[in-house]
Amino acid sequence: MEVKQLKQRAKSQAKEAVSHAKDYSQRIKDTAKYMHQKKLCMETVPTRECHVLITFPSKTKEEIMAWVDSLLMESLPELTIRKHLHPHTNMTGWYLTASYESQLKGAEMMGISKPVKEEYGGGLMEFSCPEQTMFKDIEDEDKFFSTQERQTILFYLLQNIRAPKSETFDKLKILEGQVVFPKLLSKGVISGLLPLHDKEALKKLKKSWVQTLFARQPFDEIADYFGIKVSLYFAYLGFYTKWLTFPAILGLFVTFYSANPTIQDWSFVFFTIFNIIWASLFLETWKRKSAELAFHWGTLDQKHELLEDPRPMYRGPLQVSPVSGRLEPYYPDWKRNLFRYFVTVPIILLCMLCTFLIAFGIFELQEWVNGQIAKENFSRHVRFVPKFILAITTICSENVYKKIAIWLNDQENYRLQSTYENHLIAKLIFVQFINHFMSVMYVAFYLKDFGRLKATIATLFITKHVIGNITETVIPYIREKLKVYQIAYKVAEEEVKEARQRENAGEETEKDEDDNKYAISQAEVESKMQPYDDTFNDYLEMFIQFGYVTLFSSAFPLAAFWALLNNVIEIRSDAFKLCTSKQRPFGQHVSSIGSWQYAMEVIGMLGVTVNCALLGISGQLQDVFPQYSAIGIFLIVAFLEHAILGLKLAISIAIPDIPGWVQTELAKLEYKRRQALKKIEQEVRGNIHKRATPNSPEESDVASPEEQLEPE
Amino acid sequence: MEVKQLKQRAKSQAKEAVSHAKDYSQRIKDTAKYMHQKKLCMETVPTRECHVLITFPSKTKEEIMAWVDSLLMESLPELTIRKHLHPHTNMTGWYLTASYESQLKGAEMMGISKPVKEEYGGGLMEFSCPEQTMFKDIEDEDKFFSTQERQTILFYLLQNIRAPKSETFDKLKILEGQVVFPKLLSKGVISGLLPLHDKEALKKLKKSWVQTLFARQPFDEIADYFGIKVSLYFAYLGFYTKWLTFPAILGLFVTFYSANPTIQDWSFVFFTIFNIIWASLFLETWKRKSAELAFHWGTLDQKHELLEDPRPMYRGPLQVSPVSGRLEPYYPDWKRNLFRYFVTVPIILLCMLCTFLIAFGIFELQEWVNGQIAKENFSRHVRFVPKFILAITTICSENVYKKIAIWLNDQENYRLQSTYENHLIAKLIFVQFINHFMSVMYVAFYLKDFGRLKATIATLFITKHVIGNITETVIPYIREKLKVYQIAYKVAEEEVKEARQRENAGEETEKDEDDNKYAISQAEVESKMQPYDDTFNDYLEMFIQFGYVTLFSSAFPLAAFWALLNNVIEIRSDAFKLCTSKQRPFGQHVSSIGSWQYAMEVIGMLGVTVNCALLGISGQLQDVFPQYSAIGIFLIVAFLEHAILGLKLAISIAIPDIPGWVQTELAKLEYKRRQALKKIEQEVRGNIHKRATPNSPEESDVASPEEQLEPE
Repeated sequence: MEVKQLKQRAKSQAKEAVSHAKDYSQRIKDTAKYMHQKKLCMETVPTRECHVLITFPSKTKEEIMAWVDSLLMESLPELTIRKHLHPHTNMTGWYLTASYESQLKGAEMMGISKPVKEEYGGGLMEFSCPEQTMFKDIEDEDKFFSTQERQTILFYLLQNIRAPKSETFDKLKILEGQVVFPKLLSKGVISGLLPLHDKEALKKLKKSWVQTLFARQPFDEIADYFGIKVSLYFAYLGFYTKWLTFPAILGLFVTFYSANPTIQDWSFVFFTIFNIIWASLFLETWKRKSAELAFHWGTLDQKHELLEDPRPMYRGPLQVSPVSGRLEPYYPDWKRNLFRYFVTVPIILLCMLCTFLIAFGIFELQEWVNGQIAKENFSRHVRFVPKFILAITTICSENVYKKIAIWLNDQENYRLQSTYENHLIAKLIFVQFINHFMSVMYVAFYLKDFGRLKATIATLFITKHVIGNITETVIPYIREKLKVYQIAYKVAEEEVKEARQRENAGEETEKDEDDNKYAISQAEVESKMQPYDDTFNDYLEMFIQFGYVTLFSSAFPLAAFWALLNNVIEIRSDAFKLCTSKQRPFGQHVSSIGSWQYAMEVIGMLGVTVNCALLGISGQLQDVFPQYSAIGIFLIVAFLEHAILGLKLAISIAIPDIPGWVQTELAKLEYKRRQALKKIEQEVRGNIHKRATPNSPEESDVASPEEQLEPE
Repeated sequence: MEVKQLKQRAKSQAKEAVSHAKDYSQRIKDTAKYMHQKKLCMETVPTRECHVLITFPSKTKEEIMAWVDSLLMESLPELTIRKHLHPHTNMTGWYLTASYESQLKGAEMMGISKPVKEEYGGGLMEFSCPEQTMFKDIEDEDKFFSTQERQTILFYLLQNIRAPKSETFDKLKILEGQVVFPKLLSKGVISGLLPLHDKEALKKLKKSWVQTLFARQPFDEIADYFGIKVSLYFAYLGFYTKWLTFPAILGLFVTFYSANPTIQDWSFVFFTIFNIIWASLFLETWKRKSAELAFHWGTLDQKHELLEDPRPMYRGPLQVSPVSGRLEPYYPDWKRNLFRYFVTVPIILLCMLCTFLIAFGIFELQEWVNGQIAKENFSRHVRFVPKFILAITTICSENVYKKIAIWLNDQENYRLQSTYENHLIAKLIFVQFINHFMSVMYVAFYLKDFGRLKATIATLFITKHVIGNITETVIPYIREKLKVYQIAYKVAEEEVKEARQRENAGEETEKDEDDNKYAISQAEVESKMQPYDDTFNDYLEMFIQFGYVTLFSSAFPLAAFWALLNNVIEIRSDAFKLCTSKQRPFGQHVSSIGSWQYAMEVIGMLGVTVNCALLGISGQLQDVFPQYSAIGIFLIVAFLEHAILGLKLAISIAIPDIPGWVQTELAKLEYKRRQALKKIEQEVRGNIHKRATPNSPEESDVASPEEQLEPE
């Protein structure tokens, strides 16, 4: 009996195993099927009905969601909210849609520039509701705003919702007047606040932008779809890549065609000078190009800083603004400056010092290890140990430092989003610069080993770009695919489970009918995608590359050539990344590339010093001027440096930052404004005159010119 | 008979001689009397009735004067012209007075800012005729404009009179559309075009400004009387002098209290660094102060360049301005740039090279002569020969170069007076810099004789200031006095002549009655005074002084102390010069000290390099760091230079150029303008709407928004 029992158990186990195996193979089959259906699934929810998607994780309490709901109803009464449970990610998704009316109002508040009808003079003008009939396409709700603008406007409105009174939910405390959504996001009560892709427009954009290699980038379409900030980044990338052709060709020539050693030394000196001047000209020309683009997109004519709305996170006691007369937070400059000079600067210097010392220590360790290996005390594999330590510490220190920089920047409490971002970039760049260039500088100026320097730069430059492109494009793409597969797998699993239940129950249902039930909505998929982490990393990559091209051109003239090759691909791979594997970003209005311009100008200046120093220690100058002593060479280097710096200064003064025709357009606008002000003041005068005569009591509410000019 | 005749002749000759001697002594007596009466004489013509005095030399033909007269009547019909013959200078003086109405119109055209009545919001506003009742004191003709403003307005109106058609008078050709008065002045047809002093106001100003030594300068009164440009110069001078106290005290301390040689070397290094940083801080702080003053005087809120009226001498075919829609001359930028880069730059470089080579040659000659004297080949007096040659060539080259620079600048045809002046200053500074600093640089960097350098700087610095003050103040004052004496002598001579005639005729008339006939009018005296040759020379003097203070502080730390002493007197002597021995200048509106700021910033930067180089070659650094080799010292110098330049850059970025409160005020104004524009555009929209409805034919002349905004 025992044997029988055992046999039966074994049989049933075998059966189970077989059925499991069957199940498993079935599941995989199903998954594969769903993977193929994925595209279809993602088309199910039309984007047009959702401007902003808010997702709540399952842990968020009903109580909070109810409060948020009531707050939204209060603050934005025309808002439509559809609530869906996302079955596969276990989140609640709120699909927010703003009415056309409130979009228009938001556009006015944001000061978005829109094209004016031809009969009203054409051109761009800041949108305002009372004059709305002046604007082109205002009658066509679907056409007037792009999807990106609708999303951005609603995002702006949401961002500016403040708590009417203090609320407490368990550990979450929201103070009166605090901005709600940034707080909820930072506390994880809301897991996402994102706009959705517009599949149709995206498809078009992919075709004209991603799936070509040398075609002109469609900047207007990019600005329309991703916003001006993203488009300006790609414009910059394209412009920079075009300019790279000059040093790329010359660098190739210098490297391969100057066989004669004397000619070679001369050509290196010449190439270095050329490269420095090239960098200046490129940066100046880009400023002009950037001004043209900003003018074209209506962001160049920036209001005075004090006229712009403060960013939502700007803190301070509410005060009447002396400029506009409205209540707004106020944070005195002296407090900010005190913090900047006595907290920020010392901390950043300390961080730079730490980064420097750690890197230096590890390089010394590497040298020592290399020495030991040469003496055969250590196995050859040990040489990877310091490299590994360096990689780990670099990543750690970058992350720690990023947190410190953000905290410092938050404390400095800048009034405008653009100022905030520019100061953050400035803070982050310092340590990034040390991290990226320390090893090269170490070899160049500490070891003074020119041969090794060339090898180091070449290796670092090329590997960084290859690895960079992979980690930036390929990995996120695979990760995204895997995520979709994961969800698809889950769906398949559930379906199989249900099918088996039905099988067990002996039912036979038409599968096709139920398909929708397990469909993955576009919103759900996109809410699980990685958010696009701003243009910071993209600019940083180009900044580092620009550094290699300008700082060490005398040691590695091929840098520009490799950079050119890389960037031709980079443009499309960055575009690919944005279009396929990231959440759509909210559009941002910028007037220039901000701190990056200054950072590159500083690199350009450093480039003069570094290159001249390299020429001095490389022996190239000694070969060119064999008759001079060490001091003589030193004087030549010093003279060369000063002359080139002077020339750079002259170039930056001689080339105006804003092209003539844009200047004229700006002057036109100023003329209009001044004339308008005169007219208005004349009217005010008329009104006061009337008031002076007692016969016109209906004018008595006109009190003073200031009051007249208040916004309605 | 012959003897008798001879005796008689001798007798009559003796008689004649006696009578001549009597006459002569009488004349001298009379002259002395008239010299005492001078003050009384000069009071005779009240200033208030003459805003601008035009003088014609006797050689100018009646025909031309008639043409000018008719032209004035046509262009400025409300103008009052009184014509007087100036008996003592043989000139015709036209006393021009503009009506209040045309003054107001001119003020509007010039865009002069005037204070607004409290009930209309106060503050400064650009004057405009239709809103005139808004302005303070508008009802009081005598009070609304200062005498300086009246003069400046009429000057502006005169300057802008253009010939309605071409005219030819002998050799003088005036083309159609050419500005008349600058042309007549340059051809000598008009010998002077000047405003007269207001004796009463001048007396007050002298008391509060000139006759004190340490009192605060009355900048508002100066601006009222001499115009903003002059007042800003004195504000700059005062500010700079105050700031000089820091390096003056420290320089004294360093020179006298650091007896120990090691301490001395250290203290020199420290003082040099201190001085460089001081220069940066001073220049940055001055920018802020200057912005405050310009805001206070209503010139900070500069219109866009293209909105300002072109200067009278701006040439080019008339075109419709794309900005304001008015006809104005147009000269394309590319033409100007072509000229600048392919004519101006090479010519200036050539001039600099010539100046350099000539000076260098003479210095070499001096060295050779000194050597010969040491060998007793030459007499000791020969050493003055090269010095004399240098002085002559310097004066000649400066004059020639000035002519070249003005010609070049005229060819570049700048649109605005301020741009024109700034570019002229920039051109003149280069050669002035070489002329003034070449000898010091020669001793420092060519001879590398540090002891002689100290002596050279001290001698040059002190003698230049003493001689400068004498030539600038004492000589013109004496010359002015002499001129008055000359006229008085002439008057006396004539009177004596007439008295003798009357005596001969046996008449006895009351002298007192006829006194007026020979009175010297204020206008006549002032027309013979030297015109104030703009602020250029005054700024140049301070620029050179600033150069001594910052460029060579490590060699001559006492420079700041001597500069301070000099400037305390300079302020008052410059004021004295302006108030007593120069023609009153027309007022000019400026928003800053223009090119001088940049020039001093360049000097500040040069100062870093020069001082570091001086530290390197002086041996002071070698004493401080005896353990380092020459290369080591070189590296220290290079490092020091870069570190200080970096610090300077940081300072200039960290200190905002415009103080916060001025920023706020500017933002307020921009806010008002934007709001006004919105309102106007709303109205325009309303009008177009009305036009669309056929019921309102009276609105049909409103064609487009642009037209609406045209100036009336």
